Amino acid sequence: MLETPNPDLDAITAELDQRHVFHSWSAQAALAPFVIAGGRGSRVWNHEGTSYLDFSSQLVNVNIGHQHPAVISAIQEQASLLATIAPATANLARGEAAKRIADRAPEGFNKVFFTNGGADANENAIRMARQFTGRDKVLSTYRSYHGNTGSAVVATGDWRRIPNEYATGHVHFFGPYAYRSDFWATTPEQESERALQHLERVILSEGPASIAAILLETIPGTAGVLLPPPGYLAGVRELATRHGIMLILDEVMCGFGRTGRWFAFDGYDVVPDLITFAKGVNSGYVPVGGVVISDPIADFFNDRVFPGGLTYSGHPLAMASIVAALDTMASEGIVENAATVGREHIGPALAALAEKHDIIGEVRGEGVFWAVELVADRATRQPVSAAVMGRIKRELVARGLLPFLADNRIHVVPPCVVTPEEVAEAMAIYDEVLSLDLI
Amino acid sequence: MLETPNPDLDAITAELDQRHVFHSWSAQAALAPFVIAGGRGSRVWNHEGTSYLDFSSQLVNVNIGHQHPAVISAIQEQASLLATIAPATANLARGEAAKRIADRAPEGFNKVFFTNGGADANENAIRMARQFTGRDKVLSTYRSYHGNTGSAVVATGDWRRIPNEYATGHVHFFGPYAYRSDFWATTPEQESERALQHLERVILSEGPASIAAILLETIPGTAGVLLPPPGYLAGVRELATRHGIMLILDEVMCGFGRTGRWFAFDGYDVVPDLITFAKGVNSGYVPVGGVVISDPIADFFNDRVFPGGLTYSGHPLAMASIVAALDTMASEGIVENAATVGREHIGPALAALAEKHDIIGEVRGEGVFWAVELVADRATRQPVSAAVMGRIKRELVARGLLPFLADNRIHVVPPCVVTPEEVAEAMAIYDEVLSLDLI
Repeated sequence: MLETPNPDLDAITAELDQRHVFHSWSAQAALAPFVIAGGRGSRVWNHEGTSYLDFSSQLVNVNIGHQHPAVISAIQEQASLLATIAPATANLARGEAAKRIADRAPEGFNKVFFTNGGADANENAIRMARQFTGRDKVLSTYRSYHGNTGSAVVATGDWRRIPNEYATGHVHFFGPYAYRSDFWATTPEQESERALQHLERVILSEGPASIAAILLETIPGTAGVLLPPPGYLAGVRELATRHGIMLILDEVMCGFGRTGRWFAFDGYDVVPDLITFAKGVNSGYVPVGGVVISDPIADFFNDRVFPGGLTYSGHPLAMASIVAALDTMASEGIVENAATVGREHIGPALAALAEKHDIIGEVRGEGVFWAVELVADRATRQPVSAAVMGRIKRELVARGLLPFLADNRIHVVPPCVVTPEEVAEAMAIYDEVLSLDLI
Repeated sequence: MLETPNPDLDAITAELDQRHVFHSWSAQAALAPFVIAGGRGSRVWNHEGTSYLDFSSQLVNVNIGHQHPAVISAIQEQASLLATIAPATANLARGEAAKRIADRAPEGFNKVFFTNGGADANENAIRMARQFTGRDKVLSTYRSYHGNTGSAVVATGDWRRIPNEYATGHVHFFGPYAYRSDFWATTPEQESERALQHLERVILSEGPASIAAILLETIPGTAGVLLPPPGYLAGVRELATRHGIMLILDEVMCGFGRTGRWFAFDGYDVVPDLITFAKGVNSGYVPVGGVVISDPIADFFNDRVFPGGLTYSGHPLAMASIVAALDTMASEGIVENAATVGREHIGPALAALAEKHDIIGEVRGEGVFWAVELVADRATRQPVSAAVMGRIKRELVARGLLPFLADNRIHVVPPCVVTPEEVAEAMAIYDEVLSLDLI
């Protein structure tokens, strides 16, 4: 895979990294830099030529696989035309990308606001909902991640701060999670019904007329691939509609193929008012995210200034990569592949592992979006310790698999292009590691 | 400049834009999409082949000019190796980019945290200062812009929210602005002295032990290219040091060549604790920003988890573009060009315009970073109206110049590669438009 192995570059990379690069969500001294120099499809490799099966999709974003030639060419071609241009201008790649995304969204979604990633996608969806409703509060669940930004506009001094001091009024509630119910429920149906009762109690207690938006990951991702139980999302939609609350569905991780559908909510009886996206839309080949806006909200800003923006909104390189990624995912049947591989290979294989290994408490997921809960005790469902998870990580990597681990879970989240053979290879590695004396 | 003119594409682009693209900081119906298809150096053009002299650098970011071949090639080459990889890994382009930036920073700055743009650069600098000091408040000026994000991490439900609910405790004060003093000062020296007294009063009134950071644009940009008067930044540094407050200098717009120096603060007697950057570091060819971290703050996180991060931190395409942009700016003397053109051409030419046109109240700036204040009356300094500015914009564009306008000001902010001939061409256009009967 690698044309000229060069182990020296691994050492140079590791040294530069330790000296000069400050890493996300980490204690810096504890990091042992894992060098990656290249990749293709579901595999990545270092400069020495050692390759790894990527069952993380990095941060669950490389949906089209690493280095898909169609997307790489599109980036290179756009770079030769025009790399960057201000958001106030019009650019062909930007219009084409927006059209592609609107075409995949439900009827009545025609406009797209582009950002740099998922966090500022959610920022702008919240901004839109607050402006549109004239209300302040935003409800979201405790088991969620919507990005890490929180105060730049509040630090800003000029007029752009005034309509945007909206970091207050955030209220958190409990979402459904049948395996670890916060509602003493014993079936998915009961979990759904009680989670809706709980949400309604929160809405009524906060005061419906004060609530601008309910913000939900359609399928909470890093929180554990928590597939919503039957009726839950339809029930949230009904509560939102009844109280004039905007429903924002965060499709940053679950959108654009991950579930085997273009949007995860396409599998549920729900249409939101705003959709946020990033990651899978172009597999992160260029940083980008955005908001798909339903017509009433988009029209609201026809004659009112939208009080938000950013220098790289609708960046041409990112736009060209979206056009190529979405066209290629359609023409090569990549979303369908994710659905099929999930249903016919990953699902059955994980079920077999659960049958064999007592450490597995639950397996859930669809497409290429799965979580395996590891427990010290199946009866009490007590999560395994961080030390056990650390050992599992080392053992998986030592066998050539890049895993995605969160809390006590292995998330099985390969690219949507993963093959049945690669799934078999990964499952053999999971099986071998889970067979070790871990607890 | 354009190989094959194709006016049809302008119409198609405009139509796609109006149907599907939602724009920053705008009422959407009022937009008349200005199509841009390509560019080179200080010029851009549409599909028809009409070209414009870009004296905006878009959003004051294209410091190296449009489509510099060295940066374009570097992006294309990195794309062919590896477009994206997770932040937890080590990657050669990332280490090389971080080293380049640390090398330009003062001694004692060795680590760089990469973000997607300027807003999240400031987000993370604030996060670092708050964690490091254990204090809450952040002071910044009313005449400032630090980005538009404000609540994604507050909407987040999981543990990552807990150390990050920091959108409260923001306090705004007045910075120096001799032409429109908030301190009844009549000289720059007096403005500096009184602005420092005011800041000290705010610090003491808020309680020094509660203040984590003072966040300042070294030279407030969109607020009006407000060069700090003599002694001001040194005085802020002294106040910050005396009270254990971190000084964050926001170099997003003024850094990497704009002033004719690598960092704007290199021209002042001040070293900050944290430096934020974006825009000029790679001219925005790929979305990126970041924080340069002084050693004590970086070391603080050796054994403590830094509670922030993002999927595209240290994105390889962005990193490759930084390496190429900084190396090329050095080898081609682009920063020195900005200094020389500013001193020998833009400065004298704007002074001559001010001599000739009563509508000019003040001219200030350095390098390729200038503001021209337009006033209805030189004695009262009353700003010209928005209608006058709108007319000026139309007249400049009609004559082939893309301007940057803010409030009652023309910001003269071409790329750092601008030539004396292009400056002369632009000045003739400004002169012609300011000669019209505008008020």
